[in-house]
Amino acid sequence: MFKIEKKLKDSLGRAGILSTPHGDILTPAFAAVGTKATVKSLSSEQVKEAGSQVVLANTYHLYLEPGEKIIKKAGGLHKFMNWSGPTMTDSGGFQAFSLGVAFGNNLNKFIASDAPTPTEIEEAYDERKIKKAKITEDGVEFQSIIDGSKHFFTPEKSIQIQNDIGADIIFAFDECTSPHASKEYLREAMERTHRWAKRSLDEHIKLQNSSSAHFQQLFGIVQGGRHKDLRRESAQTIGSMDFAGFGIGGSFVKEDMATAVKWVNEILPEEKPRHLLGVGEPIDLILGVENGCDTFDCVSPTRIGRNGTLFTHTGKIHILNAKYRDLLEPIEKGCGCHTCQNFSVAYVAHLFRSKEMLGCTLASIHNVYFLNSLMLKIRASILNDTFSEFKEEFLKNYK
Amino acid sequence: MFKIEKKLKDSLGRAGILSTPHGDILTPAFAAVGTKATVKSLSSEQVKEAGSQVVLANTYHLYLEPGEKIIKKAGGLHKFMNWSGPTMTDSGGFQAFSLGVAFGNNLNKFIASDAPTPTEIEEAYDERKIKKAKITEDGVEFQSIIDGSKHFFTPEKSIQIQNDIGADIIFAFDECTSPHASKEYLREAMERTHRWAKRSLDEHIKLQNSSSAHFQQLFGIVQGGRHKDLRRESAQTIGSMDFAGFGIGGSFVKEDMATAVKWVNEILPEEKPRHLLGVGEPIDLILGVENGCDTFDCVSPTRIGRNGTLFTHTGKIHILNAKYRDLLEPIEKGCGCHTCQNFSVAYVAHLFRSKEMLGCTLASIHNVYFLNSLMLKIRASILNDTFSEFKEEFLKNYK
Repeated sequence: MFKIEKKLKDSLGRAGILSTPHGDILTPAFAAVGTKATVKSLSSEQVKEAGSQVVLANTYHLYLEPGEKIIKKAGGLHKFMNWSGPTMTDSGGFQAFSLGVAFGNNLNKFIASDAPTPTEIEEAYDERKIKKAKITEDGVEFQSIIDGSKHFFTPEKSIQIQNDIGADIIFAFDECTSPHASKEYLREAMERTHRWAKRSLDEHIKLQNSSSAHFQQLFGIVQGGRHKDLRRESAQTIGSMDFAGFGIGGSFVKEDMATAVKWVNEILPEEKPRHLLGVGEPIDLILGVENGCDTFDCVSPTRIGRNGTLFTHTGKIHILNAKYRDLLEPIEKGCGCHTCQNFSVAYVAHLFRSKEMLGCTLASIHNVYFLNSLMLKIRASILNDTFSEFKEEFLKNYK
Repeated sequence: MFKIEKKLKDSLGRAGILSTPHGDILTPAFAAVGTKATVKSLSSEQVKEAGSQVVLANTYHLYLEPGEKIIKKAGGLHKFMNWSGPTMTDSGGFQAFSLGVAFGNNLNKFIASDAPTPTEIEEAYDERKIKKAKITEDGVEFQSIIDGSKHFFTPEKSIQIQNDIGADIIFAFDECTSPHASKEYLREAMERTHRWAKRSLDEHIKLQNSSSAHFQQLFGIVQGGRHKDLRRESAQTIGSMDFAGFGIGGSFVKEDMATAVKWVNEILPEEKPRHLLGVGEPIDLILGVENGCDTFDCVSPTRIGRNGTLFTHTGKIHILNAKYRDLLEPIEKGCGCHTCQNFSVAYVAHLFRSKEMLGCTLASIHNVYFLNSLMLKIRASILNDTFSEFKEEFLKNYK
């Protein structure tokens, strides 16, 4: 299902093709995050036009609303949300983190995966008095942020839900940990994640033999925090299991990310695809590819877009800066996105000042296109043996 | 600029073609309202795909933000908002009403034109202590709902702003009155509107000779409230002036609308187009056409859409009704809109429950398409001599 086209000589980076029944993903690639079966503020056509090859949805959110059974009855995620390309779902394990140790601690500032935001959790807490999630060997008990009802996720349950949702690529149930957790706790959580990985895989194999969604590829998730020994042990253990590919999880302190990813990818089987969860900063994407990752996902392009922050090749800008009020030029000259091809910065700024939804849409289109375009350029540079030059040039300009 | 293709035998209704430099409008037609140079929650492509022929923007809002000079510098409304079809702007006169006599009285419940909403005004009032607008012979003095700054609109100023904005069809500056105003006040306001119409026309002629937007068509506005003698007097006076077409204004009590429109259209010159301002209920559109109106505008399809209310041929439905949670069918079977062609009610309901912007977009697409499609059917029934049957059938089903 994964074919490596070319490898970098002096690093772990590679370009490849990840095949799914809903189409090929040319890697390295960035997955647009469609948490609740919609990439926020964008239509499927706009997601596609912005160059996205794959959409990642969130198991936790879809389980709570509308419920995985409705999605299954609708013919799966693709049909439900009218996205004909490849899809992924994460496992819901991240919620063990955001509703668990990170609960109320604003700990997800280093993380970009689409857990309930601290605000969402706090609001739910205020309104419904929900309690901190409880992690046991069997799974995670948590209360719905929607109505406070109790729920229990196990590895088996996560895989069953993901099977019903029917994405092309699904993830094993894991426990994500805080970057500030003690090494003892990181080891404990990692070992639990390994046991959950085995249970996820067993359930997956069972379901693939009995369900209609027999095409699903299950990715195992490597944890281990910021510790080399733990990361390598996790990569060994997860890498030796019969997964179709791998996810690299954990809430990274920014400086640790590339190093931790390298430790892991030096060990993971080279021939299988690797997904870096929740990373979407341009620089991190370049470093992630250089250190052997093939796919990425992050809410950042749409989340910062809705706040009026836009990627450019010289760094991020904010649309409400007074200098953009009258600027009758595209957000970035030479950008091929729908927004830059058709609208001025002044128009987008006007929409934000007027609190018009189209502002969020146009900003998100630009940002998603920016990251997709960046991935295409990285890919081309690998295929053309110019990755180092590309990286150097990009980092020189991007402040 | 306006050609009547066919007239009904036993009423004032007709089908025609209203030509503008940005394309023909096949009438009767419904204009999508793009208050702030964007049809709320829709891209230009979505507006077009929903069958809209013409977009109406709001002079008052665009004057305050981003300012008409920026729009002019951008090449006019069409280029600024990337809408290549015909456009209209209203005159800002409606704000004399909503910021004036209707101020704080929630009086716009019978009205659908896109004035600041009572909530917007109340908020502005609370935050900025803005004062009630003051109407004098010269014009209207009002405070910005954005920052409380003072502004003065005169007929000349309104036409200058509309000339800068550069829509194909613009409206004379008028004073809209409350349906509950005394006859004395209605006469006073109507006579002022007539004097302002003359001043608007004079300014328009001056600008057409000196500006680049020489293609603009100015429509005069008939007022007169619910009184037959006033409406007829207004139609006589405005109808005798050299306008390219006419708007019929006023905040109607629902029952009065068709009657008042008939009084007016019996008098207005038959060969010129007539626009009924702020009307968008399906039944009112049918009655409006029957009584001689050619074009209409209203925020209703997008406003009720954002609230989760959807038009169907059996009446309006609300998406959050429990029965739609699992319904894997389009909003309305046989509907050709993008939403019904690609998504189930269950998906749209999920988006609304999840507070996802795409819900507003998909609902607005359906509603705008519904009204455009209704206008096309009315037009076809006029051309085919089946208007009465169409009307009877529609009213029988629509509850």
